[in-house]
Amino acid sequence: MFNSKDNRQLAADLAELLDAGYLARATTRLETSDPPTIANILEAFPWEKRLQIWQLLTPQTKGAVLIELNEEVQDGLIAESLPENLVKTVSGLDIDDLADLYERLPEKVRAAVLQAMDERRRQRFEAVRRYPDDTAGGLMDVDAVAVRGDATLDTVLRYLRRIRRQQGELPEHMDAIIVVDRASRYIGMLSLSDLVSLEENRTVSEVMRAELSPIPALASAKRVARLFEDYDLLSAPVVDEDNKLIGRITVDDVVDVIREEADRALMSAAGLEEESDIFAPIVTSAKRRAVWLGINLINAFLAAWVIEQFEGSIERLVVLAVLMPIVASMGGIAGTQTLTLVIRGIALDQIGPGNIRRILGKELGVITINALLFAFMIATTMMIWHQDSNLALVFSSALAINLLNGAMAGAVIPFVLYKLGIDPALAGGVVLMATTDALGFFTFLGLATFFLL
Amino acid sequence: MFNSKDNRQLAADLAELLDAGYLARATTRLETSDPPTIANILEAFPWEKRLQIWQLLTPQTKGAVLIELNEEVQDGLIAESLPENLVKTVSGLDIDDLADLYERLPEKVRAAVLQAMDERRRQRFEAVRRYPDDTAGGLMDVDAVAVRGDATLDTVLRYLRRIRRQQGELPEHMDAIIVVDRASRYIGMLSLSDLVSLEENRTVSEVMRAELSPIPALASAKRVARLFEDYDLLSAPVVDEDNKLIGRITVDDVVDVIREEADRALMSAAGLEEESDIFAPIVTSAKRRAVWLGINLINAFLAAWVIEQFEGSIERLVVLAVLMPIVASMGGIAGTQTLTLVIRGIALDQIGPGNIRRILGKELGVITINALLFAFMIATTMMIWHQDSNLALVFSSALAINLLNGAMAGAVIPFVLYKLGIDPALAGGVVLMATTDALGFFTFLGLATFFLL
Repeated sequence: MFNSKDNRQLAADLAELLDAGYLARATTRLETSDPPTIANILEAFPWEKRLQIWQLLTPQTKGAVLIELNEEVQDGLIAESLPENLVKTVSGLDIDDLADLYERLPEKVRAAVLQAMDERRRQRFEAVRRYPDDTAGGLMDVDAVAVRGDATLDTVLRYLRRIRRQQGELPEHMDAIIVVDRASRYIGMLSLSDLVSLEENRTVSEVMRAELSPIPALASAKRVARLFEDYDLLSAPVVDEDNKLIGRITVDDVVDVIREEADRALMSAAGLEEESDIFAPIVTSAKRRAVWLGINLINAFLAAWVIEQFEGSIERLVVLAVLMPIVASMGGIAGTQTLTLVIRGIALDQIGPGNIRRILGKELGVITINALLFAFMIATTMMIWHQDSNLALVFSSALAINLLNGAMAGAVIPFVLYKLGIDPALAGGVVLMATTDALGFFTFLGLATFFLL
Repeated sequence: MFNSKDNRQLAADLAELLDAGYLARATTRLETSDPPTIANILEAFPWEKRLQIWQLLTPQTKGAVLIELNEEVQDGLIAESLPENLVKTVSGLDIDDLADLYERLPEKVRAAVLQAMDERRRQRFEAVRRYPDDTAGGLMDVDAVAVRGDATLDTVLRYLRRIRRQQGELPEHMDAIIVVDRASRYIGMLSLSDLVSLEENRTVSEVMRAELSPIPALASAKRVARLFEDYDLLSAPVVDEDNKLIGRITVDDVVDVIREEADRALMSAAGLEEESDIFAPIVTSAKRRAVWLGINLINAFLAAWVIEQFEGSIERLVVLAVLMPIVASMGGIAGTQTLTLVIRGIALDQIGPGNIRRILGKELGVITINALLFAFMIATTMMIWHQDSNLALVFSSALAINLLNGAMAGAVIPFVLYKLGIDPALAGGVVLMATTDALGFFTFLGLATFFLL
């Protein structure tokens, strides 16, 4: 771990070795690197190099690398692999990692993978697959170790040593043992830290922590992430509707959820998908981005249509054309600030029906101060620039109105989109811009037509 | 934990109880709630309610709640608390939590808190404070349990039981014990999972994992987060320049780093600070946002200045004013997509000098396809709308050029800003918009003046 202190060094070395055709040396270099580093480098290489490197990996490393890659690169490598190699690659994966990949494997490979499982592994696999990816059930491992409350710590230690002898290993990332009753219902957690430090003759139920409630299998991944964050958990038990223990979630999977969630918020604001590959084929990328450009083009034409209604005014007073983009864009900026705050507040569960009126009131207060401030500044600037007090008045009023409009739209749009079942992080910016552009042009050109012409 | 399944229910109950003046019942309600939930609710309440609730909390709960709050709300509550109460509130905090808060406490409180520490606690506190907040040293706990490699597992177990008896507890979130040599230099990790499941007569050095390298105290928090993510760590040892063990980082602190980092990226794109309070005083918020509006106003005036140079052209052909915002905004959209991808790629260490030319090449390819596609669509639309083939040609060419301009600016700007030491997540969007607006108007109006008039 951390040996490859410098990703870039490995990337540079590999590029050089591959270009020179030193495949054996490249293989050696890869063997001394760990899967996360290799995955990171694969994503940073274009496709022809990715495939070259992929061919050099052992089946086991391939599996470990595959699960670290983003979905699009995974799909590409799956498509390029022979079915029999793919079976070897994925057969050694942990149940939950395999479940994540499974749906995207070719039919033939899926059948072969299922075939190769023993009965116990297949049962555990089916248990994970029963729940959607983005729920606690989809995130959980099914290899939880559970003990009864009436056992002594000494018995638990002997039990763990026996499992270890028989199976060669304990579940990964085990920081606690789950305590269940006779009917496998969850009753508490025994931390390893307590197990190793308390007197061996005490019973599990005396020392377990019973105040930790289990996570229902259908809780959303987002909710699971929030719970882990708020309560600093390392692992948590997952139960079905009857409170029966069916698995456990470990924090390493939750970290991935948090990162993906954050990534999605960032990328979707620009109409991008977070799971996409920077070296996706050009035509594929172009198609995806064209959708977003198209949606925004409709927006832009809407604004143009508004302007067109005032062609006569612009013809008579061409300075309107010079100033109108300022009104529109400032409304957009003010709106984006409020929009970002509100979307984040909703995501953090801090803005809701209980305080939305207070938030609206505050945003209105903030933007009113700034609207007055900027209207004054702008009016002064205009008096100096164009020496036209009527124009200055119309321009600064329109700007102030569009700042207010932007802030109010930014506060309201996320709620409207939620009601409509649309993700505000994706569509919020577009809808906001449509509002601030069209209303900005309309307000300014309308006021100008009315007062100046 | 998780008892308060519904934050909103608690918020609603508290609001009702406080409004009705039932302080005793509100206190009881708070006593059955856990600190993260209370913190969450405090952030969602306006100031007068926050203070009311704060007064009802016990000093110990106050401490636990305080560390969960965002910095701005923390500062507000610190300012509202009497020094003697504040000392009580923070004295019980864990070393690393206290270190985070320390600088922001009033001088008097700091002195009293230091005074109240015993020698051992003060030494550990100074050790954490030696390192900046955003480094491994700033994130670490100093209460790591360390053993020697020649001890047997049995000895380790007895040692842990003795610490537990003497100190009443072991360090929080302990999943592994750190193995050191005589000079306290790090040599490996012994997982509790191995400790409880392997034969007691084996020695630590036989069963420890030596391949895990420790984290240098000065490694950045961001790098620490990436290591935890990539290697699915629950905890990691921190060492000084001489490889001496000085503490350990646990994943719960890393989760906070990841969340803050993601938050910062999202908020700074709108010129907002992630640590800010949704109920900050209106004037404070207005001032902060005015800075961003002001920067963008300069941008907008720059674009207006470009348009002004072509007033004569617009006067003669007013349709130019109708169409010019479309050219400018579409360039901005195309640019934002590339900008977002590149900033993220750099943050993930996947875009660097080694492949930037490939990335530029790909982005150029993608945008060329879309530029051609949209130029064609637009030209067709214009022929239908205005029946003017020259106008259609000029408009679609300008649009295509500004799409290319946007994508190239989006790819290059982050690198330029990094060189200048400016955070691209904060300034990238503004610089991009300045480019695509000014160049968009210039290209379209310039081409129109040359070819149409």
